[in-house]
Amino acid sequence: MKTVHNFNAGPCVLSKQAVNASMEALKDFSGTGMSVIEVSHRSKEWKAVMDETEFLWKELLDIPDGYKTLFLGGGASTQFMMVPFNLLEKKAAYLETGVWAKKAAKEADFFGEVIRVASSADKNYTYIPTNYDIPKDADYFHITTNNTIYGTEIHTDMDSPVLLVADMSSDMMSRPVDVSKYGLIYGGAQKNVGPAGVTFVIIREDILGKVTRKIPTMVDYRTHIKESSMFNTPPVFSILVMNETLKWIKAEGGVQAINKMNVEKAALLYNEIDRNTMFTGTAEKMSRSIMNICFVMSEPYQNKEEAFMDFAKSRGMVGIKGHRSVGGFRASLYNACPKESVLALVECMQEFEQMNK
Amino acid sequence: MKTVHNFNAGPCVLSKQAVNASMEALKDFSGTGMSVIEVSHRSKEWKAVMDETEFLWKELLDIPDGYKTLFLGGGASTQFMMVPFNLLEKKAAYLETGVWAKKAAKEADFFGEVIRVASSADKNYTYIPTNYDIPKDADYFHITTNNTIYGTEIHTDMDSPVLLVADMSSDMMSRPVDVSKYGLIYGGAQKNVGPAGVTFVIIREDILGKVTRKIPTMVDYRTHIKESSMFNTPPVFSILVMNETLKWIKAEGGVQAINKMNVEKAALLYNEIDRNTMFTGTAEKMSRSIMNICFVMSEPYQNKEEAFMDFAKSRGMVGIKGHRSVGGFRASLYNACPKESVLALVECMQEFEQMNK
Repeated sequence: MKTVHNFNAGPCVLSKQAVNASMEALKDFSGTGMSVIEVSHRSKEWKAVMDETEFLWKELLDIPDGYKTLFLGGGASTQFMMVPFNLLEKKAAYLETGVWAKKAAKEADFFGEVIRVASSADKNYTYIPTNYDIPKDADYFHITTNNTIYGTEIHTDMDSPVLLVADMSSDMMSRPVDVSKYGLIYGGAQKNVGPAGVTFVIIREDILGKVTRKIPTMVDYRTHIKESSMFNTPPVFSILVMNETLKWIKAEGGVQAINKMNVEKAALLYNEIDRNTMFTGTAEKMSRSIMNICFVMSEPYQNKEEAFMDFAKSRGMVGIKGHRSVGGFRASLYNACPKESVLALVECMQEFEQMNK
Repeated sequence: MKTVHNFNAGPCVLSKQAVNASMEALKDFSGTGMSVIEVSHRSKEWKAVMDETEFLWKELLDIPDGYKTLFLGGGASTQFMMVPFNLLEKKAAYLETGVWAKKAAKEADFFGEVIRVASSADKNYTYIPTNYDIPKDADYFHITTNNTIYGTEIHTDMDSPVLLVADMSSDMMSRPVDVSKYGLIYGGAQKNVGPAGVTFVIIREDILGKVTRKIPTMVDYRTHIKESSMFNTPPVFSILVMNETLKWIKAEGGVQAINKMNVEKAALLYNEIDRNTMFTGTAEKMSRSIMNICFVMSEPYQNKEEAFMDFAKSRGMVGIKGHRSVGGFRASLYNACPKESVLALVECMQEFEQMNK
């Protein structure tokens, strides 16, 4: 197998431990003599995985009582619809920090009045807006805590005068979160907590049942709360990999320890971007994400973009092409991205600088 | 690893080839040096899997032009809602052949008038109703071709005066299907075509865009048709296993050859049920499923149920407990269930008869 430094934006690098344990389960699950994808989801062996996974979430994030964690199919995009279906009676507030945040708000338009409290579209979403008013009569306020495409992030758990709903697809489990400040947190697993195919939802149960509309069974959170995510057959293998990923996070020392490593990894790369005159970071410094680090060639070196990409590729860097709406480069340093990969990328940038002096 | 005969109703036994190939991809996908759950879903290697999977569906089922095959998350239960969301303008007709069919109809109630054309609830769904009228002004007629819990099946592609919609979750790819007779076919993959976590939808494109209601993005089939199931991150690993399963079906000689084996396997077990005085089949003979075979202890032997279960378990039989609403036993003989497993179960029944004479 060739050596790669995986900077994919998601699906992305997962811990070796999680991948290996998942391979074992694919071969023989829990001593059943069957693959984990061949056992009944009603078996006691599978029930144990579901229970443990929910418990690991509770333990790692210190989730208070009164909340339930769900594991659903359909991706975060399905949550863009489920959130207003269940919570929007008259009016909702959205913060527009990127195209995903914009898509979430657009979906809410189907269900009621949507107030866009602020947008950073004026500067291609390179910053997190501050100084905006959240209407006190909104049913909820929706934020996207990390903006994968632009490399911006809301780093703290904000105070909101109304119910706070957060899409944490790309920074969940990258730092401790004060769950009590949120009514609902959701995200696709395929960054820090597992593979594609499963979506997590952390929901305060008492916020439900307040809208007057009829809600179809599968998009009603109460369906899945009542059956502990087993109303229908869950995405078994994706949940198993999530389970193994959470166990790995715990073994690493939990989200506090993981966060320390993430901050350190991000600093290594940002420092190089700021030092190396050939490269320029695209996000405003205050808003810089510790997960997705976006940079372009500096003004006089813009014709070197392809050359750097080729050079980095030859050194095993994978997934560093920036999103087409930003251009340049993006390195995603999710939890399982090893420090060695970051150092290897920094080395590439330094060598490229030497080569072009 | 212990030897098991896997009769699980789904998730269920998959072909060894598909499981092994999936393990390889989990280790190193397509020579990328990364696990398949770590690569970008926008990579050319992944795109090749998506394209091939769609092509295998088209090839194996001889799907006519004008249809699109989608791979979505959320299970068949999500389709119970998506079908009426996209197709029900005024009135829909449903055939009630079991609790899943009943749930599908209940979901349609949210969207318009629902005519239950017939039900076999009077005899605990042990038969497929015939002699019913499908209203000519219905937007569509919905059937469940195989009823996993009760072991009944609609064996042929019927003529319908209105658009025919079928849930084929538990008999898809078990026989050739004349797709041209259907407007839409859907099902969870976790029986004959893969693991849990992905749902297939075969849809005739020209049936869409005819309802007046607004449809949220993720439940609008047109969203997924336009983006070839890649509007958002698809359930990567589940689709990969589906791909390997379809390749295995093709290598076995396609659905015609698979069907021959399925008919043979089912005959072996039904013949034993009919011969062995200790056991009685629960489904009416004309309606018997070749996928799920339900039977109970005959009248004078009802106190032997637990003893037979223990005996069968000691011989490695797994997943033969009948659903609680039917009782007794259920052996699911999906495509990948080897003939050896069926013979082993038949042998159990014969030995148990000897032991109790």
